[in-house]
Amino acid sequence: MVIVMKPNATKNDIKNIEEILKELGLGVHISTGSERTIIGVIGDKRLIADTPLELMPGVDRLVPIVEPFKLAGRTFKPESTVIRIKDVEIGSKKLVMMAGPCAVESHEQIIQTAKFLKSRGVQFLRGGAYKPRTSPYSFQGLEEEGYRLLAEAAKETGLLVVSEIVSLKSIEQAVKYVDVFQIGARNMQNFQLLREVGRTNIPVVLKRGLASTIEEWLNAAEYIMNEGNYNIILCERGIRTFETYTRNTLDLSAVPIIKEISHLPIIVDPSHGTGKWNLVTPMSRAAIAAGADGLIVEVHPDPKSALSDGPQSLNFDTFNSLIDEVAKVAGVIGREW
Amino acid sequence: MVIVMKPNATKNDIKNIEEILKELGLGVHISTGSERTIIGVIGDKRLIADTPLELMPGVDRLVPIVEPFKLAGRTFKPESTVIRIKDVEIGSKKLVMMAGPCAVESHEQIIQTAKFLKSRGVQFLRGGAYKPRTSPYSFQGLEEEGYRLLAEAAKETGLLVVSEIVSLKSIEQAVKYVDVFQIGARNMQNFQLLREVGRTNIPVVLKRGLASTIEEWLNAAEYIMNEGNYNIILCERGIRTFETYTRNTLDLSAVPIIKEISHLPIIVDPSHGTGKWNLVTPMSRAAIAAGADGLIVEVHPDPKSALSDGPQSLNFDTFNSLIDEVAKVAGVIGREW
Amino acid sequence: MVIVMKPNATKNDIKNIEEILKELGLGVHISTGSERTIIGVIGDKRLIADTPLELMPGVDRLVPIVEPFKLAGRTFKPESTVIRIKDVEIGSKKLVMMAGPCAVESHEQIIQTAKFLKSRGVQFLRGGAYKPRTSPYSFQGLEEEGYRLLAEAAKETGLLVVSEIVSLKSIEQAVKYVDVFQIGARNMQNFQLLREVGRTNIPVVLKRGLASTIEEWLNAAEYIMNEGNYNIILCERGIRTFETYTRNTLDLSAVPIIKEISHLPIIVDPSHGTGKWNLVTPMSRAAIAAGADGLIVEVHPDPKSALSDGPQSLNFDTFNSLIDEVAKVAGVIGREW
Amino acid sequence: MVIVMKPNATKNDIKNIEEILKELGLGVHISTGSERTIIGVIGDKRLIADTPLELMPGVDRLVPIVEPFKLAGRTFKPESTVIRIKDVEIGSKKLVMMAGPCAVESHEQIIQTAKFLKSRGVQFLRGGAYKPRTSPYSFQGLEEEGYRLLAEAAKETGLLVVSEIVSLKSIEQAVKYVDVFQIGARNMQNFQLLREVGRTNIPVVLKRGLASTIEEWLNAAEYIMNEGNYNIILCERGIRTFETYTRNTLDLSAVPIIKEISHLPIIVDPSHGTGKWNLVTPMSRAAIAAGADGLIVEVHPDPKSALSDGPQSLNFDTFNSLIDEVAKVAGVIGREW
Repeated sequence: MVIVMKPNATKNDIKNIEEILKELGLGVHISTGSERTIIGVIGDKRLIADTPLELMPGVDRLVPIVEPFKLAGRTFKPESTVIRIKDVEIGSKKLVMMAGPCAVESHEQIIQTAKFLKSRGVQFLRGGAYKPRTSPYSFQGLEEEGYRLLAEAAKETGLLVVSEIVSLKSIEQAVKYVDVFQIGARNMQNFQLLREVGRTNIPVVLKRGLASTIEEWLNAAEYIMNEGNYNIILCERGIRTFETYTRNTLDLSAVPIIKEISHLPIIVDPSHGTGKWNLVTPMSRAAIAAGADGLIVEVHPDPKSALSDGPQSLNFDTFNSLIDEVAKVAGVIGREW
Repeated sequence: MVIVMKPNATKNDIKNIEEILKELGLGVHISTGSERTIIGVIGDKRLIADTPLELMPGVDRLVPIVEPFKLAGRTFKPESTVIRIKDVEIGSKKLVMMAGPCAVESHEQIIQTAKFLKSRGVQFLRGGAYKPRTSPYSFQGLEEEGYRLLAEAAKETGLLVVSEIVSLKSIEQAVKYVDVFQIGARNMQNFQLLREVGRTNIPVVLKRGLASTIEEWLNAAEYIMNEGNYNIILCERGIRTFETYTRNTLDLSAVPIIKEISHLPIIVDPSHGTGKWNLVTPMSRAAIAAGADGLIVEVHPDPKSALSDGPQSLNFDTFNSLIDEVAKVAGVIGREW
Repeated sequence: MVIVMKPNATKNDIKNIEEILKELGLGVHISTGSERTIIGVIGDKRLIADTPLELMPGVDRLVPIVEPFKLAGRTFKPESTVIRIKDVEIGSKKLVMMAGPCAVESHEQIIQTAKFLKSRGVQFLRGGAYKPRTSPYSFQGLEEEGYRLLAEAAKETGLLVVSEIVSLKSIEQAVKYVDVFQIGARNMQNFQLLREVGRTNIPVVLKRGLASTIEEWLNAAEYIMNEGNYNIILCERGIRTFETYTRNTLDLSAVPIIKEISHLPIIVDPSHGTGKWNLVTPMSRAAIAAGADGLIVEVHPDPKSALSDGPQSLNFDTFNSLIDEVAKVAGVIGREW
Repeated sequence: MVIVMKPNATKNDIKNIEEILKELGLGVHISTGSERTIIGVIGDKRLIADTPLELMPGVDRLVPIVEPFKLAGRTFKPESTVIRIKDVEIGSKKLVMMAGPCAVESHEQIIQTAKFLKSRGVQFLRGGAYKPRTSPYSFQGLEEEGYRLLAEAAKETGLLVVSEIVSLKSIEQAVKYVDVFQIGARNMQNFQLLREVGRTNIPVVLKRGLASTIEEWLNAAEYIMNEGNYNIILCERGIRTFETYTRNTLDLSAVPIIKEISHLPIIVDPSHGTGKWNLVTPMSRAAIAAGADGLIVEVHPDPKSALSDGPQSLNFDTFNSLIDEVAKVAGVIGREW
């Protein structure tokens, strides 16, 4: 933390800050510049998290130096995290694929999809039981029955299940059926939910919020980790920008950035990230080329009849091509499919 | 809804769409243009909410014509809504002011603030019992004790209480103590929470999400109204943009827009909207000049010692000026303070 | 400038930076923190503008402390600038109004508008001779003839003329006819144009770019001032965000911010800022309430027949109301109309 | 174009619109819906470009159906454009690489870079002679001397030259020395410059503006093509968002979108797109995987001493790796390096 004083700050102003910091048990370094004085704060920044130093006389602004997250950062844990669920690893050389329909609609839909996915080596069956939808008049999901249908299909095929949780109630239901929780973009800063999930030891796919910086996203992970659950898989799924051609702007730079500043694995969701099925395959290739540890993709046996997000879902044919193309890219950048 | 066909769509493609729409009980109007055919859909758009027409052969894209919200719209209810809580009206000629500290910290802090606010004619005491904070290491609020302290101060001064709820548990606690619920920006699309609040009849301040369009915001209101609770006060509190000088970009255009397309009252939060106390008064004047029904402002007896959001809080002196200035603007635009 | 070293920076890395800075004639203060060392740089930041210190071994990142603009800043010139053009002052107690059609279309249109505006006390006639339009197929302006028609109407009515320049050629034409140049949002970082305008002594309305931070905007002013022309009127006209209901998001917070960090006058353009004529009057009231020194508004005798931007133009009736309403707000905040 | 009428529009309102459209020579289709009437307009949209139909009584809003660009669109020219410059093709199977320093600094710097690039099969030498810089106090380029040094190095090595032009004067200078013009992001809507470039037949790299939608970008291309110059290479270089970790947010989705809706070739600039040299190689791999026709990358013999953009420049070693990695990705997606 650096405290930048105003050009007209007095000696007393500076002395005042110095005393506050020393009382808090922090070290102080003062640099008197040609136009301003700056004060370097040494020690655990959390000691001053709740002291509004900006308001002290003579202070212009505070400049953070150390990132606010700790457990999620590579400084804290230099080696990359690999999450193991049964015999699947996330974050190791082999890519992971999570695929399935946006929403669970019926036994037939989900079992048909699961069998197809298994035949292509996919490890995770995804499907929404609770669907956060912008309008209350859209299909909202089958709730617990959705989780149950996923578990049934998983049992029959040997796939693992990933599904979104949206509330304490849904966590209590899902815990019986799913292997990995998903926290959706709209809940990335639902701190109650983050804490609840942190108290379980079930791995979590944590999607980036529509308007979240990378730092805020890692802080959301920090909420979960701070409760004891370290099994977090970050998921870039597009941010909101002025561009209207795509549903969101998929920020693939987040992939190498996360790899640099965090030890957590990261996957990419090109379906929500673009909102258009015909962009999913090129952006999947790009995500893997950028260094992602895997993908989460919407696949539906018949997108035309899907109850939600049909326009961004692949069918079995187009998913077949995606797998083939992604596998080729993986092969030349030191990954495996 | 208008369906825009691709330039190369065939007669069969068009006929196919026509048949789907007729099966759904919708009317159809076909316009054959020089480059493309467009199909006008007549009837309740909700009938096709879950049919992904974008995927039908020959379809280029869908263009919505009628807005997706209904209960929150002025088409549905042309006269402006006035919400009455005890003897206070929100949305009538007289402005409302909600003020108080970001977080409830102690009995002394809150009672001192409440007495001051009452002396200035403020109607609502605000204060956070649950504080959604970006970092898990920041102060998170006193929880139920916070609600209790607010109610105590309200009883003593005759103020009404508004406080944020963040989960079903917090609703169950708050219902005993507060007059108005607040849903924060980060929870605007926490649809479970919206539905829970919709099942009460307690008025709700619904803050606009950081990355929410006005349409999505009204859809969030629609979630609450769809459950039966029509007592919604919209609150513009700034959106996220590339500008870093302010914490958010306060979108005051939202005020006259909401007045045009919705019947719900709207207030403005210049404290979160700017993040800097010295911008709060000019932006409060501007908000009222733009037509807002009131303000929600952070006031703290001693911002320098505040446990959260000190930099954007007014003290009693600066709040006194705010009230004086806002009252003058109100007087010349047909409002009262 | 503060240089933040990496956690693993060596003593040699730090010594290396120290030597570079000393060679450049800069002072150095080193603070050794618990996790990182930071180096405070003392002296004129421009000395290191072209030295990429970020790349030196052990350096994590640079944090600017002093703003990069100087001539445009209030630190450099504490008193507010008032620009005088003939008998009109911009930046003093009395508000200025610049009004007229988006594009100059004909003698009749412009003279009729000018007479009306003069009758309402407007000081400046605005009108576009060169129109930057998104599509090459839209009306592009009358060019020099447009400037001539404005000057003719000004002579007859005693108004001053403000009009956009887009190139060296247009400056050479405009200089004969106009009193104030306008630099449009799309040219705010056309640095050649800024320099050319800086070499004249004609006052300039400098619109904020669609994607420009306040700091970049002041840097654009700095380009003009650095060439010797200090007569700059900043103009907030909306920034680009994800919201689609308005053409742009009018950032009124920029008004009090500019007043705080710069000495230059600032006006607001609610016509381009919203893109909808029915939002122009409420946002004009709000702009003045926020502290703006004036407005620039699109007025057309018959918006329905306007060759550009009709939807955001007021007609004479609605402009009459705008003047009346703005005058009332001005009266209660210590300004005059 | 579809005209959406208000719910309370009268028969006369509708008749009025019908007559205006017929007078303009356009066809009309009227659909009377349950809540609103919509009017389909048939014929060349440009006929109504300058008629503000939004203002006619009873009209709610206009919805464009056909994209406003024509020459740049794939509807107009279904086959992909390949641009030939001497023996190099842009847009064919073989990728193109444009590389070199941000700014031309000296003969030695540029010749050393050119020789290295030639040895790695790079086709184009890039380098800035005119440098648009945010602050007037940063290095602004060597101007004509910069173009001359590039041409000299090109002659000696057989490379082609690409360099930015910023004004009519710079075009007149550059035309003697360079093979490809570059229009920078800040000038993407400098319509005078677009027209000037359109009057030459020199190929143009047209960078996307920081706040430009894909549609506006294609409209900028349309300005150039409308003057007769069809040799346009689009260049995605990042857009401005709220994320501050990267200089811009590289929007790689633009690559497959441009391939779908336009016939023009597209390259990607990962150096400006991220602003950090260590993100350049992963994002280059991703760009090629997404389907880009080539890259433009900043390379400097000694980034630490670069006069501009050093932090985002590769040195020869890291550029060597980039070429190797990109070549491998190209090989598995049907492209060549």
